[in-house]
Amino acid sequence: MTDRNIQVQSLDRGAVEDEAVEIVERKGLGHPDSICDGIAEHVCERLAQEYLDRVGTVLHFNTDETQLVAGDAAPAFGGGEVVDPIYILVVGRATSHYVDDDGTEYHIPVDSIALEAARDYLRETLPNLDLETDVIVDVKLGEGSGDLQEVFTEDGPNVPMANDTSFGVGHAPLTETERIVRETERSLNGDYADDNPAVGEDVKVMGKREDDHIDLTVAAAFVDAYVPDMDAYTAQIEALRDHVHDLATDHTDREVTVHVNTADDYESGSIYLTTTGTSAEQGDDGSVGRGNRANGLITPNRSMSMEATSGKNPVNHIGKIYNLLSTQIAEEVVAEVDGIRDLRVRLLSQIGRPIDEPHVADVHVVTEDGLDVSDVESEIQAIVDDELANVTDVTKRVIDGELTTF
Amino acid sequence: MTDRNIQVQSLDRGAVEDEAVEIVERKGLGHPDSICDGIAEHVCERLAQEYLDRVGTVLHFNTDETQLVAGDAAPAFGGGEVVDPIYILVVGRATSHYVDDDGTEYHIPVDSIALEAARDYLRETLPNLDLETDVIVDVKLGEGSGDLQEVFTEDGPNVPMANDTSFGVGHAPLTETERIVRETERSLNGDYADDNPAVGEDVKVMGKREDDHIDLTVAAAFVDAYVPDMDAYTAQIEALRDHVHDLATDHTDREVTVHVNTADDYESGSIYLTTTGTSAEQGDDGSVGRGNRANGLITPNRSMSMEATSGKNPVNHIGKIYNLLSTQIAEEVVAEVDGIRDLRVRLLSQIGRPIDEPHVADVHVVTEDGLDVSDVESEIQAIVDDELANVTDVTKRVIDGELTTF
Amino acid sequence: MTDRNIQVQSLDRGAVEDEAVEIVERKGLGHPDSICDGIAEHVCERLAQEYLDRVGTVLHFNTDETQLVAGDAAPAFGGGEVVDPIYILVVGRATSHYVDDDGTEYHIPVDSIALEAARDYLRETLPNLDLETDVIVDVKLGEGSGDLQEVFTEDGPNVPMANDTSFGVGHAPLTETERIVRETERSLNGDYADDNPAVGEDVKVMGKREDDHIDLTVAAAFVDAYVPDMDAYTAQIEALRDHVHDLATDHTDREVTVHVNTADDYESGSIYLTTTGTSAEQGDDGSVGRGNRANGLITPNRSMSMEATSGKNPVNHIGKIYNLLSTQIAEEVVAEVDGIRDLRVRLLSQIGRPIDEPHVADVHVVTEDGLDVSDVESEIQAIVDDELANVTDVTKRVIDGELTTF
Amino acid sequence: MTDRNIQVQSLDRGAVEDEAVEIVERKGLGHPDSICDGIAEHVCERLAQEYLDRVGTVLHFNTDETQLVAGDAAPAFGGGEVVDPIYILVVGRATSHYVDDDGTEYHIPVDSIALEAARDYLRETLPNLDLETDVIVDVKLGEGSGDLQEVFTEDGPNVPMANDTSFGVGHAPLTETERIVRETERSLNGDYADDNPAVGEDVKVMGKREDDHIDLTVAAAFVDAYVPDMDAYTAQIEALRDHVHDLATDHTDREVTVHVNTADDYESGSIYLTTTGTSAEQGDDGSVGRGNRANGLITPNRSMSMEATSGKNPVNHIGKIYNLLSTQIAEEVVAEVDGIRDLRVRLLSQIGRPIDEPHVADVHVVTEDGLDVSDVESEIQAIVDDELANVTDVTKRVIDGELTTF
Repeated sequence: MTDRNIQVQSLDRGAVEDEAVEIVERKGLGHPDSICDGIAEHVCERLAQEYLDRVGTVLHFNTDETQLVAGDAAPAFGGGEVVDPIYILVVGRATSHYVDDDGTEYHIPVDSIALEAARDYLRETLPNLDLETDVIVDVKLGEGSGDLQEVFTEDGPNVPMANDTSFGVGHAPLTETERIVRETERSLNGDYADDNPAVGEDVKVMGKREDDHIDLTVAAAFVDAYVPDMDAYTAQIEALRDHVHDLATDHTDREVTVHVNTADDYESGSIYLTTTGTSAEQGDDGSVGRGNRANGLITPNRSMSMEATSGKNPVNHIGKIYNLLSTQIAEEVVAEVDGIRDLRVRLLSQIGRPIDEPHVADVHVVTEDGLDVSDVESEIQAIVDDELANVTDVTKRVIDGELTTF
Repeated sequence: MTDRNIQVQSLDRGAVEDEAVEIVERKGLGHPDSICDGIAEHVCERLAQEYLDRVGTVLHFNTDETQLVAGDAAPAFGGGEVVDPIYILVVGRATSHYVDDDGTEYHIPVDSIALEAARDYLRETLPNLDLETDVIVDVKLGEGSGDLQEVFTEDGPNVPMANDTSFGVGHAPLTETERIVRETERSLNGDYADDNPAVGEDVKVMGKREDDHIDLTVAAAFVDAYVPDMDAYTAQIEALRDHVHDLATDHTDREVTVHVNTADDYESGSIYLTTTGTSAEQGDDGSVGRGNRANGLITPNRSMSMEATSGKNPVNHIGKIYNLLSTQIAEEVVAEVDGIRDLRVRLLSQIGRPIDEPHVADVHVVTEDGLDVSDVESEIQAIVDDELANVTDVTKRVIDGELTTF
Repeated sequence: MTDRNIQVQSLDRGAVEDEAVEIVERKGLGHPDSICDGIAEHVCERLAQEYLDRVGTVLHFNTDETQLVAGDAAPAFGGGEVVDPIYILVVGRATSHYVDDDGTEYHIPVDSIALEAARDYLRETLPNLDLETDVIVDVKLGEGSGDLQEVFTEDGPNVPMANDTSFGVGHAPLTETERIVRETERSLNGDYADDNPAVGEDVKVMGKREDDHIDLTVAAAFVDAYVPDMDAYTAQIEALRDHVHDLATDHTDREVTVHVNTADDYESGSIYLTTTGTSAEQGDDGSVGRGNRANGLITPNRSMSMEATSGKNPVNHIGKIYNLLSTQIAEEVVAEVDGIRDLRVRLLSQIGRPIDEPHVADVHVVTEDGLDVSDVESEIQAIVDDELANVTDVTKRVIDGELTTF
Repeated sequence: MTDRNIQVQSLDRGAVEDEAVEIVERKGLGHPDSICDGIAEHVCERLAQEYLDRVGTVLHFNTDETQLVAGDAAPAFGGGEVVDPIYILVVGRATSHYVDDDGTEYHIPVDSIALEAARDYLRETLPNLDLETDVIVDVKLGEGSGDLQEVFTEDGPNVPMANDTSFGVGHAPLTETERIVRETERSLNGDYADDNPAVGEDVKVMGKREDDHIDLTVAAAFVDAYVPDMDAYTAQIEALRDHVHDLATDHTDREVTVHVNTADDYESGSIYLTTTGTSAEQGDDGSVGRGNRANGLITPNRSMSMEATSGKNPVNHIGKIYNLLSTQIAEEVVAEVDGIRDLRVRLLSQIGRPIDEPHVADVHVVTEDGLDVSDVESEIQAIVDDELANVTDVTKRVIDGELTTF
């Protein structure tokens, strides 16, 4: 039924859910590393869209290297100020000049596009960051190296060739701890933030499970304009802790303890108060690919790819595509196939072959008691085969901003 | 009546109005050098205001070193775009940390203030420049050298001491050619621009008078969004030429010829079309102190100060104060005293003395026929004396943005 | 015998050596990411040394954020040139002003130290990079956030407290593939390079083992000054391939295939020729923490830490210390204890406790047939305990430049 | 005998030597503005040379916009250090890609050339500046605007056309005060410095003559490594004062008073001590065109051009050429023609005409008593005519580094 090399085997470790100790982390949207990931990816989307609009195809680019240099700030109850602006350098490669087969010449304002995309992203993501006073956005986009500036057409299912030996990995389903960590950050940057403007976007959530006890450690930047005094601050801390505890116990029957801003020292007045909602305002630098993996989490218990997916070209960067695709496959398999307790998908590219024909797609599963891998093998293979056949959908969804990379 | 050393003498040259050849130039608001002057001065005003608001006195600073690196653009009839943003580096010194005599500590966000001031100035001055895509504003403000960080209080007429041997020069009245050059640029960046949005802010006016013939050469950037095609462009050129000719002949009975955008080459399509209204978008760098003198003109027929007045601290920078004050004195004398055809005021500081007591204030005049210098000497001396006595008014007016420096 | 929580268990997966597919990668010294890692770590060493020399203790700093923006080059047989210099921005935090308990004030020139360290590192590592024409090194070091600027004394075994929940992981012994990948890069940047100056420092080695077949893919930048023509180039490729094959077969009995510069296209003349020995000269940006893990390898088959160890403060950054220490422990255990086929050490910190008392130190082992974990448990525990007791040795060795982080 | 419009007239003012008050200033080689002038001009020379070597003609460029941002230093008797490096941004335009008429394509590494030229200049000019620790040199050279990238061939006396209305002015002979100011700086940066390494390169000399009294004010940076203590410093001050006094009295019979480092305050220990020999190390920014005019002096008593000559393209930048040429003409006339007390040459370009045919070359002279302008008119005209005929020599001498511009 398929020529693709898809192997389904038993996972030689048990389910992560069964391990004695589990650690999970998520750096929230406003964390300096996540800011860089977000800018890199947003610049990527915008460049791809502009290339499609202007040229009809996505030209060579990679914008996976934003660097953030922290500013300096003087937060204060009721509202402080940024003293030294944050400096953000958007780095990468992009094709600014192109001649198509008809001899039509294109000049694409890649630096201007990147500048605007970066500033738009900051404006949307960090509402308390004043773009006129608090941040300097600089851009250094070079042309790519000559022999890589090939153009990859987008008409029809024109699957690109792999130009590198690269590797992607995905897992499903998430463990309870993973889900709790992810949902905690989402809530604190979502519905909870809507009702509590004092909560900044720089929320870091660390989950540590030991057997049946889950410790959640939340480091949340608070926005000084909405925090009039220390009492208000401690009230915010309490409310946030309660909210996270409620949220966590909705996802687990395990015992949950929540710690918030453990580094605070009320006596010395050293608390996690910010003017902009991010620690980038003072002392915390950031860069791309240093934080969450493509599934939004850092999971030392699982194998992870070192690849920085944010900002990579979604048309031909195999590391990006395979990491996103393997995650998607894993989720799809778990959604469709019953009885899977843990599953890992790995895709390994083969240089010179279309990327829908990986060297190997191996799927390792932990099945529920009574179910054998052979019982689900063909079903899984069919799903993997189908997802690989539609590999270009990943590209499209990235460009449309439908997939997150961090 | 006064102890000040004020000398009034006959000017050893004739009036500039009588010279055979006269050259006058003005770089308009949107010229890259003027943009830098304007940013430097606006940052200066804002810093001084913030110091007064926060500390009650103006602390040490100098922001007279903005550098503009031109961008790259693709202007096009009907609307083009900036391809590579302009890069502007605001440079200078400013006191960010201060402890007053009561031990109160102040942290002044000088970089953020400068960033905002620069961006505000660009937004107001160059309406066709999109601050989100067309320009990167960077800031590097250091602390001043330790021993210069004295504080100059503003309470009462506390005249500062001269800390340098410096020199200022002013002239009045303007010659016809000077007036025409100045008014031409003002009109093109004023009432004429209001009615003709196609005219950009980067207008350079060069006046050359030979005896009774005045050649006006205008280089005016046009804004592509308001110029649909070449016919519209040539029509704009014609209209602008007519407007300038009319304006000029309102000020003179001499013969006037007006040249507009002489470097245009219609055949090759090389015309002065821009997207943003300034040549800074493509190829023309700029910096402070390289353009107009404090009276708004470049006048090789007159002695000029090399001092870059824009961005200098108005409280204690003697070069800035004396250039502005000598211009003001010259204008005041000519307004008050009849029979003066040409007048030059020079102020020379004396280190260690209050700045209202210059080493020498010398006034050289060309009087009308029948009038002797001695006839007006005492009247002039009184005016000069009075202006010197109120030297701190210059400081105040600079901080309030009432004096232009370029 | 010890209060430390040291757990020794069986590894729930088999030895990596037994897995069907294994992937290993090493980015060589001249790879743009490795250049950043190297600069970050060298700046770190130098700052720590300077702090010790000047103040007697290591002050707060972190220099883990160098960003490299690729240049542009025109390599040519016999010697080309860099056209646009590489731009390197050294980013981080460092304490420049310090007052000790006796009131003695110190000003530490951290930016100058970082600048020199970065340039020294480049000079030593990339002999074909001309520091006068090929690279611009810029520095932006801010002060750390106030409440983190504690000082950690170095007198005696003063073990710092963990200020974060952090995690380190180490593995031993290396698999054949891992050893081959690491030794290949070392040789190409070592003895082989000494004899073959044509081989640049930017060598990337990818090893892929499928059962008993190892594919080694080497991407090696060649230095144009030592490559007169295409024949010389192909001869170099052949020689390098043979060398790597010989080296690999010294480490394994498995079948080995070596691929060198597979992206070369001789027909179009597109080959991996450089002027400086690194792809950073044209098109390949780099940053810290994106390449090799602390053991010098990228090993998707093993659990890895996301932590960027290079540039982190070796006195108190728990992630750095634990990653280096766990690797060291793993190697020590394997060297001392017989019968261990695979071993993973994980250290998890406990906030507020001395870092020699981790929350848990768990050791998972795969023993040889016939050996039970319980047979080696106490021996392993003793080694771990001893290593933890000497945790400050890691700090010392980092400062002395004896430990590599990438 | 000539078609050129050369007019010789009486100067309508007296000789500057006869004026009651005369002010003259020279910023020495190590002054921040002069550093920028020097870098700009040295980059210019090197680019022109490289263009000639590689392409056979000088391509379009302008490098007249270097910006220096002061560093921070901690000078100390016996040797201090730079704490924050000086930042220098070399700005301008240069053609990096060129196709000649034969279709041969050239890539000129303009950024690398500029980087090396700037660093070479600093190394030669500021021997106490450590290029590895004390300064960051950055480069931003853009391409020029399209329609200006014409190429001016150098074969034969191919005189370029004026593309702008521009103006140059030169004076001769120098007054006593001017000579003294110039020679003082030259000596302090020349023979005196050779014997006294404690004297830095940042020497500013201000001369003020009132009738027959000359006040020389010297601000000289001393190099801390050569100044062990305060006594040594005051001894240096004394010796320098004596040296300058001797030098001055060799040039004049007027009374001379010499002031050195008047801002020093021995009590507070505030003296002009530096580590590098330039105030750029701490607090004094600099940029091009803000200091000395093309004759090396700032002379408010004489008409001056605002043109920043340093860094301008010597092939076609009319302002640069005319300022250098008019100075050369003035000196030549005074050397050849007897009886001239003061002379001013002005050259005004005519757009669209070869630059050896200015719109007007006017020479104004003050002759000695008994000599009439008409007596020397034809002799002067012949010299001017000859110099204009050889205008391209100026270009050549600039490229060869034989002419100074500041």
